[in-house]
Amino acid sequence: MRSGTMPVIELIPAREAKPKPPADRLGFGRHFTDHMFVMDYEEGRGWHSPRIVPYQPIALDPSAMVLHYAQTVFEGLKAFRSADGRIRLFRPEMNIKRLNRSCVRLSIPPVDEQLALEAIRKLVETDSGWVPGEAGTSLYIRPFIIATEPHVGVAPSSTYLFLIIMSPVGAYYAEGLKPVSIMVETRDVRAVPGGVGDAKTGGNYAASLRAQQEAKKYGSSQVLWLDGVHRRYVEEVGSMNVFFKVDGTVVTPELGGSILDGITRNSVLRLLQQWGVKAEERRISIDEIEEAHRDGRLEEAFGTGTAAVISPIGELVLGGRKLAVNGGEIGPLASKLYETLTGIQYGRIEDPFGWMMDVLQ
Amino acid sequence: MRSGTMPVIELIPAREAKPKPPADRLGFGRHFTDHMFVMDYEEGRGWHSPRIVPYQPIALDPSAMVLHYAQTVFEGLKAFRSADGRIRLFRPEMNIKRLNRSCVRLSIPPVDEQLALEAIRKLVETDSGWVPGEAGTSLYIRPFIIATEPHVGVAPSSTYLFLIIMSPVGAYYAEGLKPVSIMVETRDVRAVPGGVGDAKTGGNYAASLRAQQEAKKYGSSQVLWLDGVHRRYVEEVGSMNVFFKVDGTVVTPELGGSILDGITRNSVLRLLQQWGVKAEERRISIDEIEEAHRDGRLEEAFGTGTAAVISPIGELVLGGRKLAVNGGEIGPLASKLYETLTGIQYGRIEDPFGWMMDVLQ
Ligand SMILES: Cc1ncc(COP(=O)(O)O)c(C=O)c1O
Ligand SMILES: Cc1ncc(COP(=O)(O)O)c(C=O)c1O
Repeated sequence: MRSGTMPVIELIPAREAKPKPPADRLGFGRHFTDHMFVMDYEEGRGWHSPRIVPYQPIALDPSAMVLHYAQTVFEGLKAFRSADGRIRLFRPEMNIKRLNRSCVRLSIPPVDEQLALEAIRKLVETDSGWVPGEAGTSLYIRPFIIATEPHVGVAPSSTYLFLIIMSPVGAYYAEGLKPVSIMVETRDVRAVPGGVGDAKTGGNYAASLRAQQEAKKYGSSQVLWLDGVHRRYVEEVGSMNVFFKVDGTVVTPELGGSILDGITRNSVLRLLQQWGVKAEERRISIDEIEEAHRDGRLEEAFGTGTAAVISPIGELVLGGRKLAVNGGEIGPLASKLYETLTGIQYGRIEDPFGWMMDVLQ
Repeated sequence: MRSGTMPVIELIPAREAKPKPPADRLGFGRHFTDHMFVMDYEEGRGWHSPRIVPYQPIALDPSAMVLHYAQTVFEGLKAFRSADGRIRLFRPEMNIKRLNRSCVRLSIPPVDEQLALEAIRKLVETDSGWVPGEAGTSLYIRPFIIATEPHVGVAPSSTYLFLIIMSPVGAYYAEGLKPVSIMVETRDVRAVPGGVGDAKTGGNYAASLRAQQEAKKYGSSQVLWLDGVHRRYVEEVGSMNVFFKVDGTVVTPELGGSILDGITRNSVLRLLQQWGVKAEERRISIDEIEEAHRDGRLEEAFGTGTAAVISPIGELVLGGRKLAVNGGEIGPLASKLYETLTGIQYGRIEDPFGWMMDVLQ
């Protein structure tokens, strides 16, 4: 898609600015900024009329396809405010590429990557006052596409809306990096090769809700998914990819078509490579992990994702039994990765990979 | 759930009746009646305020959970007009029970079954002028529930909307029962045990769109799904369950957790039992079907579902090869089932099972 033809993004400013919630009460995804980005798609005409408008409800015909057949894709990324006041995005082009990969799987027409990037940039610029500056806070950005054709019939929609909304989010670890308990899920399955597990689409998350509720009963905050074919190989954790350190080697499940190609996962692998830490992308079974734990070789476990960046796993709940990882404490590798990634994101340390993109021009 | 506490369904009539499309241009799910049913759910308060209101767009916050995490379930059933003018529903209580089973899988609060049944009945009564009377036409009824909480975070919603919309639909086989071509899908997978394949929820349909588009390239109207674990066992067809007649025995895939428990499927099994036709619910592999075809033992194949009732399969496309079933003609069993089921539905023949429910009281 050529940039020469990139349409201008119109701006219809909000009449009034909403009151901003205090930094210690932000939570996650509960408050939304003053503006949102909208673009329409119609068969024959393509994507058109990109615009930034006041944040407002959208009117959908009750037969709109997204409400029935879940033809939808989304993304999640963050804008960070540095100590010097700069506002920057973390690898946004990766999110847009992944959005378009998700589109292909869901039979949704892809968006112009440069236009989508500019839409994110300009929206953050417009609502730059909403990027919080307190330690650990950020602005969460949610691009998504929904099928809007008023038609009750299973077929790709002929019309879509591409929206971007944004939410200031609080520090994920208000009291410092804290290990979580994760339940290994043995009944429900999230995704299977040939399905939509490697796309960021609603159905995957809908399928995960029941197990997540069950996990809470065991005191776990999330579930660790096993593969849907053998019911043995580790997949991912809730909204995170997962890493294990066994015998000094870092192992993360390979991208086999049923898990998300996480941008934090990719960044962690790049950092480990740079640091000379041995890392493997391969199948890893829950038995292998249990065995390593029994033999005292399971050194660390952690999740990676945009929301938490790094989430140390202090406990695995497996068939009712509780396996403590690293004595329930944060491991040194998880800690170093967290400090490095957030250091780059908040501009505290150098950005050797050119991952950060300035929002203000 | 007790009927003693059943709330009254309020009726807010539409000011104007919309023009009704001509019977030969109805299509499927393109036109909607004058009214819709709405009911709200809030955590703590439960389902409340059931009402019939003019058909109208619904306003959703752009962060409404259904748009991101596809937390939604739906149903599909029909109202039929008999020659004597009566309007009747086909086994509606089965749809409501299935809706609630889908709710459990999707962590959605179930609805009161009697209230839901009365909502359907009263809505059809309100828009009874929309039930077409021409041969093969009917009124398609779409109950559905969507998660509406304005929250970008993966968790069950705390608020929901239950809606029922209705669409007059044309004769599925305008020129008489016609065999279809079906492509056996070998790349994409629709569902897997432990997933949501036995729930009627958007994600299953989103996952099916790409393969369905591919099938069109081969001249097939739908795909035949294989199981996601072994990639060998037959599951179902698009929005239909599937039956094969091999060596005089009717075989349909067993309900193993990854396919929908179809109401037409159930009705067909009941009829076969009554007729003394040998029928088996079991795993059946695509190899077994291919072999039966090769040996001339594959007598018939057909799909079953609310939309088409019975859809004879005249051809299976398997790895590019085309296997004709019953010489591409409608088989006698498919034909008899179609005549019997539609006969019961339109009141042309007796209803021995008490399947039909009168709408007008
Ligand atoms: C299912 C799933 N896996 C993994 C991730 C982590 O991906 P990323 O690091 O790009 O945020 C996410 C969140 O985006 C997710 O939803
Ligand atoms: C996936 C799927 N399988 C089977 C069916 C057939 O079910 P029923 O006979 O209840 O319409 C449907 C349609 O409802 C469906 O969507």
